[in-house]
Parts: sequence; structure tokens; C-alpha cells
Amino acid sequence: MEVKIGLLGCGTVGSGVIELVQKRQDMISRLTGLQPKITHVLVRDPQKPRQVSFIDEQLTTNADDILEDSEIRMVIETIGGIEPARSYILRALQAGKHVITANKDLIAEHGTEILETAEHAGVDVYYEAAVGGAIPLIRPLKESLTANEITDLKGIINGTTNYILSKMTETGADFADVLKEAQELGYAESNPASDVDGLDAGRKLAILASIAFHAKVTLDDVEVTGIRTITAADVAYAHELGAVIKLVAEGTDRDGNLTLQVRPTLVVKDHPLAHVSDAFNALYVRGDAAGDLMFFGRGAGSLPTASAIVGDMIEVLRNLRMDTALRVRQLLLPHKRVRRGQGEPARYYVRLAVNDQPGVFAQIAAIFGQAEVSMETVLQKRSRQNSAEIVIVTHEVGQEQVTKALNALSAVNDVQTIHNVMPVIGGAQ
Amino acid sequence: MEVKIGLLGCGTVGSGVIELVQKRQDMISRLTGLQPKITHVLVRDPQKPRQVSFIDEQLTTNADDILEDSEIRMVIETIGGIEPARSYILRALQAGKHVITANKDLIAEHGTEILETAEHAGVDVYYEAAVGGAIPLIRPLKESLTANEITDLKGIINGTTNYILSKMTETGADFADVLKEAQELGYAESNPASDVDGLDAGRKLAILASIAFHAKVTLDDVEVTGIRTITAADVAYAHELGAVIKLVAEGTDRDGNLTLQVRPTLVVKDHPLAHVSDAFNALYVRGDAAGDLMFFGRGAGSLPTASAIVGDMIEVLRNLRMDTALRVRQLLLPHKRVRRGQGEPARYYVRLAVNDQPGVFAQIAAIFGQAEVSMETVLQKRSRQNSAEIVIVTHEVGQEQVTKALNALSAVNDVQTIHNVMPVIGGAQ
Ligand SMILES: NC(=O)c1ccc[n+]([C@@H]2O[C@H](COP(=O)([O-])OP(=O)(O)OC[C@H]3O[C@@H](n4cnc5c(N)ncnc54)[C@H](OP(=O)(O)O)[C@@H]3O)[C@@H](O)[C@H]2O)c1
Ligand SMILES: NC(=O)c1ccc[n+]([C@@H]2O[C@H](COP(=O)([O-])OP(=O)(O)OC[C@H]3O[C@@H](n4cnc5c(N)ncnc54)[C@H](OP(=O)(O)O)[C@@H]3O)[C@@H](O)[C@H]2O)c1
Repeated sequence: MEVKIGLLGCGTVGSGVIELVQKRQDMISRLTGLQPKITHVLVRDPQKPRQVSFIDEQLTTNADDILEDSEIRMVIETIGGIEPARSYILRALQAGKHVITANKDLIAEHGTEILETAEHAGVDVYYEAAVGGAIPLIRPLKESLTANEITDLKGIINGTTNYILSKMTETGADFADVLKEAQELGYAESNPASDVDGLDAGRKLAILASIAFHAKVTLDDVEVTGIRTITAADVAYAHELGAVIKLVAEGTDRDGNLTLQVRPTLVVKDHPLAHVSDAFNALYVRGDAAGDLMFFGRGAGSLPTASAIVGDMIEVLRNLRMDTALRVRQLLLPHKRVRRGQGEPARYYVRLAVNDQPGVFAQIAAIFGQAEVSMETVLQKRSRQNSAEIVIVTHEVGQEQVTKALNALSAVNDVQTIHNVMPVIGGAQ
Repeated sequence: MEVKIGLLGCGTVGSGVIELVQKRQDMISRLTGLQPKITHVLVRDPQKPRQVSFIDEQLTTNADDILEDSEIRMVIETIGGIEPARSYILRALQAGKHVITANKDLIAEHGTEILETAEHAGVDVYYEAAVGGAIPLIRPLKESLTANEITDLKGIINGTTNYILSKMTETGADFADVLKEAQELGYAESNPASDVDGLDAGRKLAILASIAFHAKVTLDDVEVTGIRTITAADVAYAHELGAVIKLVAEGTDRDGNLTLQVRPTLVVKDHPLAHVSDAFNALYVRGDAAGDLMFFGRGAGSLPTASAIVGDMIEVLRNLRMDTALRVRQLLLPHKRVRRGQGEPARYYVRLAVNDQPGVFAQIAAIFGQAEVSMETVLQKRSRQNSAEIVIVTHEVGQEQVTKALNALSAVNDVQTIHNVMPVIGGAQ
């Protein structure tokens, strides 16, 4: 039996979906007993040259052709952004269509509305492609690992910043130059804010944390620091310390108290996340029964993302075949609370510029001492006339203590600037 | 609504299942709307002291209490071995009970019989725990990644050998000593053959390959080399070459031609598998759409294994709630063929003992040259009177060529012994 599908959007991801469904037509029918058929493809500009070829009247600019067609059982959204994607998805759900989306912005911001609308309409929403591209993450968290209380998530979940930081590490170039190159190569958007300011990683962390911790988490709950302030100097110091800089997303659940952070992080080279380069993503998960787990793979790209979407499509086909829906529900535990600025104890990297004169370092050491932050490594370099650069790596210490020390430091006259503060992970302790 | 469950076996894994179900009772009910209740637990010796406490008449030595009880909807098998596990599982399936098992020996050897019996009876068999302990592997391969043609599997999937090889690397001790210690600590069985001869890894590879490549694969299809011949000398040479020795399972599908091998392998330290130590397992998967993926986690242990089993239990509860079965079927493609001795081109490590006299090395070099095997690195050491040890690392070469060169070598008078031959993975090329 044929199952009619409407595809919203035919860009990088949408065209990958068309290609993969064509390629796997036969296998999908054998696996599910049903034949998926993408009958309509919504685009803005039907004249645009495309990578894939179309059949019949497939291309349309009118969303109603999909949303009002009662024969269409499944809608795949690959438009991106909030509107009109949100309205289209809500209308599709209300019309009893199952929805698959790769839209992390939308799920992070309007996930609850979408899941509730789906539940009300008795249909399913799948979004494996929204986080980690090809890597199975959502489904393992929602299904395979459900016997666990998940306490920790930690990973690299934004490809653009990982590409930029990898290139900065390789070439020693500064952020702005690498960003420009990445934009020319199509690895970064012309408006890179969402990626380089850490918002994209923050949204993905919100999606993962909602599922793993059974809590309602949105971007507002995530403390986000981007990578704009990372300079070639930080990259060089990291190298001197045997580390690389990565944008790390981290969520913890300690007896119902959640902390959620996206921060540039010094990853010492003995830590597996140090080796996740370029367009790859990786996520660590710690469960109370399973222990530590890691998932690694391509976080984006046309076919990797389509792999996740078509995986979801096969799931919907299996549900249609079985005539079931809402098999896997989201669980929300009411007692979960988000705490800010109270991340797990960690070592911290602090880089600051100070007046180059006697006694300044003693003053800094005294402030760290008062805040009970002890120092593991200190690097000191004269950078220019009357200015010295100091890099401190602390011993493991609570985030609140570091904040206290930094507040005190910034009140000291001889401290010119606190350039960067980052946690350090990995490294024999 | 309560769902009655029978548990066969209450050892390491079974007691973990009882503990985890008790701990997660509330969460499982919220997630599935059903209350799992383990009403009977089959053991051999009811007097044995156990880690977990029992309720009512839970403990039994009579399998009929479970298999003949029509109220029991689900049977979890944690006995291990072929019989009586196989008969119990077949009887349970025929009686319309869903089955969950951690029994890799049984699935590898009698998987087809068991799956066919289940299909015939209209019930499900789940076995996530049989490979990779806590790591979600079976379900991602059967569900998330089904849009892919999977071409490569490569991993460390036996904990005992990985523990032994890790300890040999750390301490420089020889195989026999480390094995003895591992047995005393309970990390290796008193009869270690299944682990150290690579059979356990071979069975797990057969299970994974069946699913990933959609083919009927059993242990007989896997070329298996164990780790008994690995000596402290090999470990030391590996170290000199920047590598560690791991037991690597590898399966490839090239247009329907499968090769399946379990072999000790030199893993250069820049390769992620080099860092999978002790009781951890890891699996690389390459799909034509997804690209490279890696899954990592605990391969065994009471709660990690129970994590996978209770994950499967929740899946069965969801099916019961939806009143469905056989959602996810195994696909068997008839055109797949297993080839032997034709693994992917690789660099090879060869260690041999030769008569310590002029001209021997030239002879060896000539033989390699004739077989078109070129050498990348040669280490040569006088080991004792009239005997020298030569270690050669070749450039990348087909498995058949290496076999040809080795056959020619063993015919040379001055070659005393070919100690070990292993592929090399990782390392900048
Ligand atoms: N790219 C990746 O690797 C990746 C990975 C994971 C998730 N995602 C997510 O997948 C989604 C799609 O990303 P993409 O990279 O494929 O985007 P894209 O290449 O920009 O494609 C967007 C498509 O949507 C169509 N579209 C946009 N606005 C529309 C509107 N108002 N009405 C009708 N059609 C409209 C465009 O039509 P025209 O072709 O006519 O312009 C285009 O075909 C986003 O949510 C993104 O976050 C992407
Ligand atoms: N251990 C792991 O980490 C691990 C990981 C993955 C998969 N597995 C698989 O899980 C299964 C169980 O392993 P395990 O380590 O839990 O084994 P185990 O500790 O030896 O436990 C076996 C249990 O089965 C019972 N049993 C054995 N033969 C029986 C019989 N004929 N009739 C009734 N009961 C019988 C034993 O009863 P008594 O207690 O009375 O002796 C014991 O409770 C195996 O298939 C193994 O391959 C184990």
C-alpha cells in the first residue's frame, strides 16, 4: 500500500530526503510493507535549479496542497525557522497527519505546544534530525535508556563552532578570519549569530535535556557563552597546556536540580571530546544503571540529516502499518528545577591582562586564596609595554567560588582585563 | 494495569534486572501506563544467598511455574548457555509470551529458529543486552539507521579480552599471568575459551552483522583468531610502534559480499578504538547516508546489562499497551555471500624469529617483494643465540597478498617461527 507524504522545503535537507527515499524505496517497502510516496514538495521558488528531479506535479508553492490533502498521512518539515514552519506543523497535526521535522529552533522554542497538539490529535511528531544530525540520540534517550535516571549530558553539538575552533587550532588564525572563510565555504551562515553565540547548541541542549531529565527545558534555562571572545592567544595557551578549545554543552541533574550550560571549554587531549573535529558531533550520557555512554557521528549535512529523517519516516510507516500512534510519550516530572551559575566543580582556565609591575601577581594570588581557589598552573608573559598576560589554571573548584574570585579580581586596579574564563575537562588529576 | 513477568535466572544479570525494576517501578508506570511485576524467578538453588530480596513465592526451581502460567505475558531469560535456555524460550514464545534475552550464544547460534518461532506465534523477541551491554546497538541498527546501507562494522565487543590486553599493556606481563589474575578477580571465566579464543566476539559480530547487513550470519561465517598467542613481546613492539593491541571485530559488506573477522589488531594511538579500555566496548558503524558513527559504553556488568533489558521491557510494555507485536521485523536479503580471507586492504604487523646470519633479511625482503608487499617499518633484535627477531609493518596491502607472502616465508629454512600477524589500524598514512 502506498503512503502519501508531503515534504515542506527542498533545500540541503529536503533534497537529501528525496534522494534517500528514492534510493531506498525497495528496502523501505520490504521493511514496512508500505510504499512511501512523496506526492508534493513545497518550495518558495519553483524555478530554482535543484539537485533532485521531480515527478508529475510534485513541486508547489502552496502549502494547502499538502495541508488540505486528506490523503497525505505524513508531513516532513525541512523549511527551518519559526514561521511559517510552526503554523504548517500545527495545521498538519490538527488534520491528523504525522509530522517529522529537523527544526531544532522550533522544537526548542515551541516543543511543548507541538507535542501537546500532536497528543490531542492522536498523531506523532518525530525529530531525530534536530539534534546531532545522523547520530541516533533522541530515540536512544526516549527508548533504549529509559530504565535509567540520566544524570549527565556532555557534548559537542554545534558543527559550525566546532569547525571554526578546529580551524583556529590547526592554523593559529584568529576567530574573525576563520569565520569569514567558513562563511565563504558555506560552513557558516551569513548571519552566524545563532551558531557562534552558542544559541544553536543551547537549543539542542534544551531538547536533549527535556527528554533525558524528563523536564520542560527551553533555551532560557540554558546559560550560554559563545566563542566570539576566543582568540588565537587562547588557542595557543590551550596548546601549551596540552588542550584544545571546544564549545561544550553540558547538562546535569542532581536530585532534580538541573544546570544547563554551553561554554567554550579547554579539553585536554586525553579526553575523547578533544578528538571530535570539524563537522562531527559527540554526546556523552551518564545513566545510573548504564554508566557512561558516548555517541559520535556527523552532526549535519544533506544525507546524514536525511538518514535521521528517513529513519523517522520508517518508524511512522511501522506505526501506520500497526495502526498505532503515541506509543512513546514524553514524561514531565514536576519537581525538576533549573539552577543558574552552579555548575559541577571543575578546573578553570583564566586569562587576564594586568599592569606589569611588582606585587600584582601577589595581589591576584591573595584574592584566589581568599576565595579558596587554588592554582594548579600559572603562565605569565609580558605582552606589551606595561602590560603582562597571566594565564591561571585552577584546581577543581565550584563555579560559585570562581565567580567570587573573578568579581574580586575585576575590582583590582592593576587588573586591566579578564579576557576569558573557561572550564577545563580531561587531564590526569 | 499489572503485567506479570517471569524471570529465568537470577545471577549477575537477573539480580540486576530485579533491582532496576524495583527502583524504576514508578517511572515505568508513568512512561507506559502499565505496572511490570516479576511474579516468578527461576533458579537452580533456592537456598543460595542472593543480593536481592524476594516477595511471596517468587523463587522457584520449576520452569513450568513460568512457562505454563497463562497470566505471564513476558519472559526474561538470563540463564545463559544453549540448553535449557533455548527450550524455555521456544516454549514461552509458543505460549504467546514476549521474550527478552541477554543470551548472545543462543541468539548467534539459534537466532533464526527463535525469530521464526516468535513470528509464527505473533510475539516479540528483544535482545539488546546480548551485544555491547548497556550500549544501544541493536535498536539503532534495526530502527534509527534503517535508511542506510551499512557497509562497515568495526569494534571492541568482548570485555574479558579487552581487560586482559589492557592489563598486559599496563603491566608488561604475559598473557597467562594476566589471565590467571583476571580469573581470580572474576573478570574471566574459569573456562575462558569462549572469550580468549574470540568466539564470544565472533558470536556478537554475527548478531550485529545479521541485522546491519540483512543477512543470515552465524559464528561459522566469522574468521576468528583469539589472543592466546599475544605475548609481552608483541605488546612491547606495539608500544614501540605507538600502538596498543586490541581484539577487533570487523564486518564489511561490499555489494553483497561480506567479510567477517575477529582478530588481534594493532591500534595506533591516534585511533579512537585505542582508548577503549578495560570493560568498555565500542562499535563503529558506517552507513552510506549517515557516514561514520561510533557507540561507546559499558559492555557488561549487572546494572549496565539490566539497563538494556529493562529498556527492552519498557518496549514490550509499550507494545502491550498498544496491543501490537512484530512491529520491527528482520529483513533477510538473499543475495548476500560470505567471503573468507579477503578482508579490506590494511597495513600488517608481522613478527618472526629467524636464524641470525647474514643474508636472511635479504631473503625475507625478496619474498615480500615478490608478493608485492612493501615494508613501512622494520625492527630487528637479536633475541638469543643464533636467533633474531624481526618485526615488519607493511604498507597497505590486500589480505590475500599477505597470506601469500607468509606462506612463502614459512617455506624458508632460516625462518624459525612466524609468531604473530595482525592488521594495523590508525596512524597517519
Ligand atoms: N543543513 C543541515 O545540515 C541541517 C542539519 C540538521 C538540521 N537542519 C535543519 O533542517 C531545516 C532545513 O535546513 P536546510 O539546511 O535544508 O535549509 P535550506 O537549505 O535553506 O532549505 C530550506 C527550504 O525550505 C524552503 N522554504 C523556506 N521558507 C519557505 C517558505 N516560507 N515557504 C515555502 N518554502 C520555504 C526553501 O525553498 P527554496 O528552495 O525555494 O528557497 C528551501 O527549499 C532547518 O530547520 C535546519 O535547522 C539542517
Ligand atoms: N554478566 C554480564 O555482564 C553479562 C552481560 C551481557 C550478557 N550476559 C548474558 O546474560 C546471561 C546471564 O549471565 P550471568 O552473568 O547473569 O550468569 P550467572 O551469574 O551465571 O547467572 C545464571 C543464573 O541462571 C540460573 N540458572 C542457570 N542454569 C539454570 C537452569 N538449568 N535452571 C534454572 N536456573 C538456572 C542460575 O541459578 P543459581 O543462581 O541458582 O545458580 C543463575 O541464577 C548469559 O547469557 C550471559 O551471556 C551477561
